[in-house]
Amino acid sequence: MKKMKDYDLFEIGESFRQKELVTEDMINNFANVTGDRNPIHLDKEYAANTFFKKRIVHGFLYGSFISKVLGTRFPGFGTIYLSQEMKFIKPVYINDKLVVEVKIIEKIPKQKLKLETKIYNQENDCVLDGRAIVSIPK
Amino acid sequence: MKKMKDYDLFEIGESFRQKELVTEDMINNFANVTGDRNPIHLDKEYAANTFFKKRIVHGFLYGSFISKVLGTRFPGFGTIYLSQEMKFIKPVYINDKLVVEVKIIEKIPKQKLKLETKIYNQENDCVLDGRAIVSIPK
Repeated sequence: MKKMKDYDLFEIGESFRQKELVTEDMINNFANVTGDRNPIHLDKEYAANTFFKKRIVHGFLYGSFISKVLGTRFPGFGTIYLSQEMKFIKPVYINDKLVVEVKIIEKIPKQKLKLETKIYNQENDCVLDGRAIVSIPK
Repeated sequence: MKKMKDYDLFEIGESFRQKELVTEDMINNFANVTGDRNPIHLDKEYAANTFFKKRIVHGFLYGSFISKVLGTRFPGFGTIYLSQEMKFIKPVYINDKLVVEVKIIEKIPKQKLKLETKIYNQENDCVLDGRAIVSIPK
């Protein structure tokens, strides 16, 4: 496990990008784990009659890719997650190829970082825009 | 499937509460589905040496109980999720018995609702405090 660098070494503007693919299996499994069986995510015929026209991915499924990046890659292991804001800007569909982007936008006293957290789809549309605050252990 | 009531019938102060239990299996499955294999969630020995002392539940796992309530119970099927803010106030541990509480705090033009979204543990401590904005289809 890669040790996280010291708080003082994190710089404003520093960023990290990670690719993620959302498969049909992931949606079904996510629905089973969380119990979120909203038919907009699971039922093709139901979804066809909605604004979205087809099944959409749970926002909390692709949102969790942010948590994954923060806690395992950037800032990395040991990161303490204090808050997350998310705007679900565009729907995410099955097999969308996503890019998660995390950027340091502010250093806050007491070892905290404010991060811009965005997710883009394969058309380079921003599907999720948000901010997170994390704490870095001493 | 229960049809959602008309937007005009939703009232400020109206609320909904739902119980949720977080099991060890759910954490392991959530890690597998999302790929968030941060050892603070999965590795007992690693967790013992952190601030938290034991494995904690992914914030996005119990956060997704909010999405589940919004999309299936209150406001209900058809709800369009526009945004979610979450402050992770206290850690959630394996087998915690949670209560998810959603309350309407504002009616926003164009069929939108602002919701207070809180999660409490079995000690009645608020573990997650947040706000969501949703849109109700006509």
